[in-house]
Amino acid sequence: MLGNRYDNQTCSAARALELVGERWSLLIIRDALFAKVTRFGDFARRLGLAKNILADRLTGFVENGIMERVSTDGSAYEEYQLTEKGKDLAPVIIALTHWGDRWLAPNGPPIIYRHGNCGGDIEQQLLCQECDGVVDNEGLCIEIGPGMHKEHS
Amino acid sequence: MLGNRYDNQTCSAARALELVGERWSLLIIRDALFAKVTRFGDFARRLGLAKNILADRLTGFVENGIMERVSTDGSAYEEYQLTEKGKDLAPVIIALTHWGDRWLAPNGPPIIYRHGNCGGDIEQQLLCQECDGVVDNEGLCIEIGPGMHKEHS
Repeated sequence: MLGNRYDNQTCSAARALELVGERWSLLIIRDALFAKVTRFGDFARRLGLAKNILADRLTGFVENGIMERVSTDGSAYEEYQLTEKGKDLAPVIIALTHWGDRWLAPNGPPIIYRHGNCGGDIEQQLLCQECDGVVDNEGLCIEIGPGMHKEHS
Repeated sequence: MLGNRYDNQTCSAARALELVGERWSLLIIRDALFAKVTRFGDFARRLGLAKNILADRLTGFVENGIMERVSTDGSAYEEYQLTEKGKDLAPVIIALTHWGDRWLAPNGPPIIYRHGNCGGDIEQQLLCQECDGVVDNEGLCIEIGPGMHKEHS
């Protein structure tokens, strides 16, 4: 929903930000994912968000396959439900939350994600699929992938 | 840099988006992190970004401790270098990239992150610190943390 402004960037992060990089987008998805909000009025109330902006975001999510509009039998309300593509944004929101917890939460985290099974703390880590090692920033390197060549050929 | 618009949200993701949720912010940080860009002109060229917008973003990053301005000896140019707080945004950018790779890259990923040591593929996972299990969305639960109580007391 950033229009074509990032289109010259052959980069999956840039493409992702086209769909979810607009102001409020990730907070709407956060509420859908973790507070199970589905109704227009509930999103508007929780976020204190102007209705025209919220309507634009939700319509964009539906157009881009991140949410689907569902009419529940017997209810006067339509619901907005995350698709698999939408639910798959959880790692982005968790990464933002953990960064905010580390750097912007002097009184400790307001919300803690836990493992439902055992109540343990959750940590997001980069794991190497080859050697099973945990990878930090310094251990990362970057390689041009097939999507780059095809775009430019 | 979203001003006070998210301030009523006691949530670390909302706070993080105040600092890095503006259009272009995460792409500037991506270039600093993974393409090692440090100079104003190089950011402007790579991103095709208006200079006043870029200047606003970089100034905001410096004010919020995400970057620091460094005058390199013998160079006429100031450099913008990521602080630890800035480098710590890598998991956010990697999460966005992987989501884009899964859902928006029909020709395959344009860029692949690898483990420098062994060349293996990198996967970002949620790990439980208690039982060592890999946690999926359904396995997550949410608890109110100390930051919520202190904010509201």
